[in-house]
Amino acid sequence: MEFELKILGSSSATPSYNRNHTAQILTIGNQLNLIDCGEGTQMQLMRYKVKHQRISNIFISHLHGDHFFGLFGLLSTMHLQQRTTPLTIFGPPGLADILTLQFKYSNTHYNFKLDFQELDTTVHQQIFEDKYITVHTLPMQHRVSCCGFLFREKPKPRHLVKAKLPDFLSPPQLVRLKNGEDILDETGNILVRNEDVTSEPSRSRSYAYCSDTRYKEDIIPYIKGVDLLYHEATFLDNMLERAVYTYHSTAKQAATLALKAEVKRLLIGHFSARYKDLTPLLEEAKAVFDNTHLALEGKTIGILE
Amino acid sequence: MEFELKILGSSSATPSYNRNHTAQILTIGNQLNLIDCGEGTQMQLMRYKVKHQRISNIFISHLHGDHFFGLFGLLSTMHLQQRTTPLTIFGPPGLADILTLQFKYSNTHYNFKLDFQELDTTVHQQIFEDKYITVHTLPMQHRVSCCGFLFREKPKPRHLVKAKLPDFLSPPQLVRLKNGEDILDETGNILVRNEDVTSEPSRSRSYAYCSDTRYKEDIIPYIKGVDLLYHEATFLDNMLERAVYTYHSTAKQAATLALKAEVKRLLIGHFSARYKDLTPLLEEAKAVFDNTHLALEGKTIGILE
Repeated sequence: MEFELKILGSSSATPSYNRNHTAQILTIGNQLNLIDCGEGTQMQLMRYKVKHQRISNIFISHLHGDHFFGLFGLLSTMHLQQRTTPLTIFGPPGLADILTLQFKYSNTHYNFKLDFQELDTTVHQQIFEDKYITVHTLPMQHRVSCCGFLFREKPKPRHLVKAKLPDFLSPPQLVRLKNGEDILDETGNILVRNEDVTSEPSRSRSYAYCSDTRYKEDIIPYIKGVDLLYHEATFLDNMLERAVYTYHSTAKQAATLALKAEVKRLLIGHFSARYKDLTPLLEEAKAVFDNTHLALEGKTIGILE
Repeated sequence: MEFELKILGSSSATPSYNRNHTAQILTIGNQLNLIDCGEGTQMQLMRYKVKHQRISNIFISHLHGDHFFGLFGLLSTMHLQQRTTPLTIFGPPGLADILTLQFKYSNTHYNFKLDFQELDTTVHQQIFEDKYITVHTLPMQHRVSCCGFLFREKPKPRHLVKAKLPDFLSPPQLVRLKNGEDILDETGNILVRNEDVTSEPSRSRSYAYCSDTRYKEDIIPYIKGVDLLYHEATFLDNMLERAVYTYHSTAKQAATLALKAEVKRLLIGHFSARYKDLTPLLEEAKAVFDNTHLALEGKTIGILE
């Protein structure tokens, strides 16, 4: 199953050097999740040939413009292009108010069902679950209510080793084997031992999105060992004071968190407009955590099972 | 003095074929006026090297997203880039509500004074005046409150013919001559006859912006003879029924209005996403009014004095 992140934008505050505002697409199987939606996101989706009609969930971290001003236009385009599939938007308090007021003045009644899920950004809790994944909030520390998101695949079924499977097993028995059960006979004795005919399940992949926030170690238990951590790195560490003052992080801090949380890979983004060349940010982070990459527009990061 | 229109976008409803949503910059002297502000306008301003800090007035025709969803981001960027110059926004009822709610949730307090001027879109009236120009509303007929805008230079002073000017004239007397007065002696007799020492003033230029609207002849008296008319032409005339139903116009209708209003030049825009090639729209309009042009992104139309 596909588990892939696509970067649509990674500029903080003001768009600059052709870097667009924050937006990412996380594809898990057939499901597209949009994470944040800065201005111009619908154009970026077109540019990278991502079909917006396939997006089923939108996650908005906070109500600063560079993270959600593209939402109005995207919803409007979905409506004008005859979307009928329901859409769920997860966001902080206020987002529903803002959208409702705009619908009122534009006299808009969408063709599709729009479900708002208002988030408590101060806690770590599950906000979404389907057959394959769960999504939890990650409390951030920013100037307004803000949370990150942790996407995690659910535990997967064990693999059946076909060469070792007896012929007499029925489909329900195969399901039980996949779920880790032994197959018993009528008297309760083990007929087929699970470990003899199955192998370990594929691992469950995970992605943590942390933006915008001050450096914040108390989220480490939640993101421990994730396959991919996106963490904002608005500034270089020589601007640490400014980072603290504006409730942002430095590249060094992002890498330190990645190191302490023992994540597999780090992606930094939300770059300040003062950095035309992003190499110093990358180098600063890599000095602490080598497997760091820049969240450049158009970049795709697939995570293998 | 410069009188120049720059097209930043001309796509209707949904952005398509790299055509952005409606936005235009009308430069009159040192003053930049932004007319409508679709999503991505701040990026288009950057692309065409228009300094947003020089914009003093923003005119929003109506509250459909393709005409104002870029406003939030542009204002935010003005604020983040330390604007201190006051800004006036002219727009229909509701715009102030929408912006105020966003400021509340993003906890934003702008560095610069933002003045909202709520428009009555149903009447033709003056909404702005300075030393050089006036701006009037043009009532449109659309699905929500909507008006166009008529920009007109004020009558200009007469030119002094230096070779014919007597030496003895004082600066106040020269001003009176420019204003068309004769210069009298102490007894009230004509000392210098105006027409002997001055020539006709430069003409006053004008620009009418009409979007979005059904074909509407009752605005002809207001736009009669303007130098440049921008009129929406969402559809070809073979979709007239759809144009009427959606409160839009066809290219033929735009040209018919230009012809009847005896304007000097017509610019058509607000193209439906169904037209990848815009040539048929241009040809349809030119068949009725030859001096028609497409409102293509990046195009600049200067009007000479």
